[in-house]
Amino acid sequence: MAEKLVARSVDFNEWYNTLVLAADLADYGPARGTMIVKPYGWALWENIQGALDRRFKATGHMNAGFPMFIPYSFLQREAKHVEGFSPELALVTHAGGEKLDEPLVVRPTSETLIGHAFSKWVQSYRDLPILLNLWNSVVRWELRTKLFLRTTEFYWQEGHTAHATWAEADFETRQMLDVYTDFAVNEAAIPVIPGEKSEGERFAGADQTLCIEAMMGDGRALQSGTSHNLGQNFAKAFDIQYLDPNNIQQHVWTTSWGLSTRFIGAIIMTHGDDNGLIMPPRLAPYQVVMVPIYKKEEEKSAVLAAVQRMQAELVEAGVRVKVDDRDNLTPGFKYNDWELRGVPLRMEIGPRDVANNVVMLARRDIPGRDGKQSVSQENIAQGVPALLKTIQADMLAKATKFRDDHTYEATTYDEFKEWVQSGFVRAWWAGNNADEKQVQTETKATHRCYPLDQPGGEGICFFTGKRATRQAIFARAY
Amino acid sequence: MAEKLVARSVDFNEWYNTLVLAADLADYGPARGTMIVKPYGWALWENIQGALDRRFKATGHMNAGFPMFIPYSFLQREAKHVEGFSPELALVTHAGGEKLDEPLVVRPTSETLIGHAFSKWVQSYRDLPILLNLWNSVVRWELRTKLFLRTTEFYWQEGHTAHATWAEADFETRQMLDVYTDFAVNEAAIPVIPGEKSEGERFAGADQTLCIEAMMGDGRALQSGTSHNLGQNFAKAFDIQYLDPNNIQQHVWTTSWGLSTRFIGAIIMTHGDDNGLIMPPRLAPYQVVMVPIYKKEEEKSAVLAAVQRMQAELVEAGVRVKVDDRDNLTPGFKYNDWELRGVPLRMEIGPRDVANNVVMLARRDIPGRDGKQSVSQENIAQGVPALLKTIQADMLAKATKFRDDHTYEATTYDEFKEWVQSGFVRAWWAGNNADEKQVQTETKATHRCYPLDQPGGEGICFFTGKRATRQAIFARAY
Repeated sequence: MAEKLVARSVDFNEWYNTLVLAADLADYGPARGTMIVKPYGWALWENIQGALDRRFKATGHMNAGFPMFIPYSFLQREAKHVEGFSPELALVTHAGGEKLDEPLVVRPTSETLIGHAFSKWVQSYRDLPILLNLWNSVVRWELRTKLFLRTTEFYWQEGHTAHATWAEADFETRQMLDVYTDFAVNEAAIPVIPGEKSEGERFAGADQTLCIEAMMGDGRALQSGTSHNLGQNFAKAFDIQYLDPNNIQQHVWTTSWGLSTRFIGAIIMTHGDDNGLIMPPRLAPYQVVMVPIYKKEEEKSAVLAAVQRMQAELVEAGVRVKVDDRDNLTPGFKYNDWELRGVPLRMEIGPRDVANNVVMLARRDIPGRDGKQSVSQENIAQGVPALLKTIQADMLAKATKFRDDHTYEATTYDEFKEWVQSGFVRAWWAGNNADEKQVQTETKATHRCYPLDQPGGEGICFFTGKRATRQAIFARAY
Repeated sequence: MAEKLVARSVDFNEWYNTLVLAADLADYGPARGTMIVKPYGWALWENIQGALDRRFKATGHMNAGFPMFIPYSFLQREAKHVEGFSPELALVTHAGGEKLDEPLVVRPTSETLIGHAFSKWVQSYRDLPILLNLWNSVVRWELRTKLFLRTTEFYWQEGHTAHATWAEADFETRQMLDVYTDFAVNEAAIPVIPGEKSEGERFAGADQTLCIEAMMGDGRALQSGTSHNLGQNFAKAFDIQYLDPNNIQQHVWTTSWGLSTRFIGAIIMTHGDDNGLIMPPRLAPYQVVMVPIYKKEEEKSAVLAAVQRMQAELVEAGVRVKVDDRDNLTPGFKYNDWELRGVPLRMEIGPRDVANNVVMLARRDIPGRDGKQSVSQENIAQGVPALLKTIQADMLAKATKFRDDHTYEATTYDEFKEWVQSGFVRAWWAGNNADEKQVQTETKATHRCYPLDQPGGEGICFFTGKRATRQAIFARAY
């Protein structure tokens, strides 16, 4: 707690790694590459889960629980799928004291199990659509660990749906991308760009992968959620067929979509500053921290009485409040500690505030005097929620301005090479998979997406010189 | 759906196995012993989670996320722990295309990982208590699978806490047993008996195991939740020490407590009848199902209008409502289908009900005409929640009467042998572990617990003839 952070501008990577530990979000597990999400980090994840789960249910999905173990042969049924995931698999070979006849894969994702189940559950067009979501963890063996961004096991949700027609699957794929976009923008204050992945960046087994891309505080991109149209690839691999209204057997069309604890990394790197985290109020574990200030015993009782009264009013108004009444720490230490943890609003209250019936509010997103104001204790039940809304909106505006200030339109490869080192480059693109690889080798930047929002018309590809019908966004990425 | 169930009284075991599948609660996964919890079953689990999570947070606990992989050597540090869990372990030996230096255990429970983490996190008495809970799944290799009761992987919560004194750990162990008891009685309408396990039935590594025991509809017992006082066993195995206020190093005292998807089995087997499930209203995924009845097109619009209006009123009143508007099924089929799934209250509405401004209510817990009443549509927003409360209370009363009617006090082994085949036997007990094993061999009944509620005084043990200070409950168990 209250450890000295390296400045974000000096060493972004070191700042991130120190902050995740210092702010008590997460810790390393003893098995290589594993992560412990500590209570403060998990509370953030619970709020993310709640905001997403509401949206999933509002669009007709129900949650389910699928096993973590997949027979190895299942992975092999979809050729691209096994090719994509093979290098990262963890295998259970022994159980109950015996060697297993066939190794079990610890799920890296559940399309194969879902395919197997859907083939049993779907008989008729009346059984469709199936709209499922799973909250679980998956395992993909990682050698270079970075908490929340790359760990051997990570937490996520994976949606899985089956439909009678391509059009319905296409609608679902886009609808869930809209859900992710709405969540990122309006809950996390992260102005993501919804787009489509190039062929080379698609999910292993998908016909189309849509994504949301976010810009981090160092100008790099972070893929923050994906939605896949799986076509009939898994339907054919797992023989998921239904009898249509004309009594003809048809293969279903499936989708899958996921968002993970990686998103916590996006929140940290989008909003954080030299003093630590800045939590968007709508997702913050604690929206308000109250710090009572007193020296003498008679001051203490008056201050704590006011704190308790205001705490009750705020809780009643639906505000998540933490009272820091630790009696072995100075107020200054507590300010630093809660700034590090990114609580959006601090309330300081001392004997003079009690006497004057006021309380000092300090905004986390505006450091120093500019973010402080003394307000009457009378209407905090209205004033604090309103101020939290303002903070939320200001954080989104600030992140949007930063993203726009660091997004460049390039027409030549020379411009591209220079600008892509400090942000997103948007440019006409007609290259293929090999071209993308060459760009990556020469600039370290990758094709992030074709944004759904396109200018229309045509342009000249900065790399191949060919006529292009779509612009792409490139960036160095996490 | 609507498959023919064998009567519960004819073959309880077959009734259970068929019902779990027919009611769409769960299915078998492809890997041996694994379970898919289907959306209807998962919605029940989510309501269980919500009811418990509120209670955990109200008693000061926070959730966290711990890895599923444990280095094999960790298990070996606590001697009784490894002895207890070794036969059931699943081992990851290969990952990322290579053989691992040390196998990883897929967690059977997380005391060892928690011990390792606490040893890093705890320095001073000011860091205590630590009050954590994890929602996850664990793996214990099972050869005889029974959905919800015995599967290789199951879902649960595991609480883990560390305290400065034995007294605090004891308080916590008892407090969480109280939480489980309150949950079982007041949310699930299951009149559990809180008690203490005998030495032979303790958790591997615990000084004391408390439990709640429930009686199923066939008179057998189901252990439905456990709370362990781990003493300093794990604190010493993992060197969890703190500096006390006098600057002396002390080992902490730890507890753990868990309740799993096994509890869904308890709900099924406590309340179900020949027609299927009966869900307690407070946990039911759907508390009310509305079945519109019509033949002609003009009837349909009037009926559906009334259904939608009442649905909106009930949702506004906080009732979980399902409207069954499938147009290819008869009302009679739907009645059977929702009876199978145990929805506590059915609302039937046809053209004549619309004309008379009434609606027919049918209670799931009282079959046939006795459970039906026609009521005015006017005040269903008050009437339905009140009726759900009555159903909840009646279900608890019925289960309590059944339990009491099947609980016997035995003073001789002959009485014991006869009565223990059809219910619980409560008797003075002074036997040891070997005596318990002999009773089990001869009667198939096991020592379930020493109930916390004791008559006081002394009695004569029915088996050893020794003087006993406590009564125990024995039963055949799941």
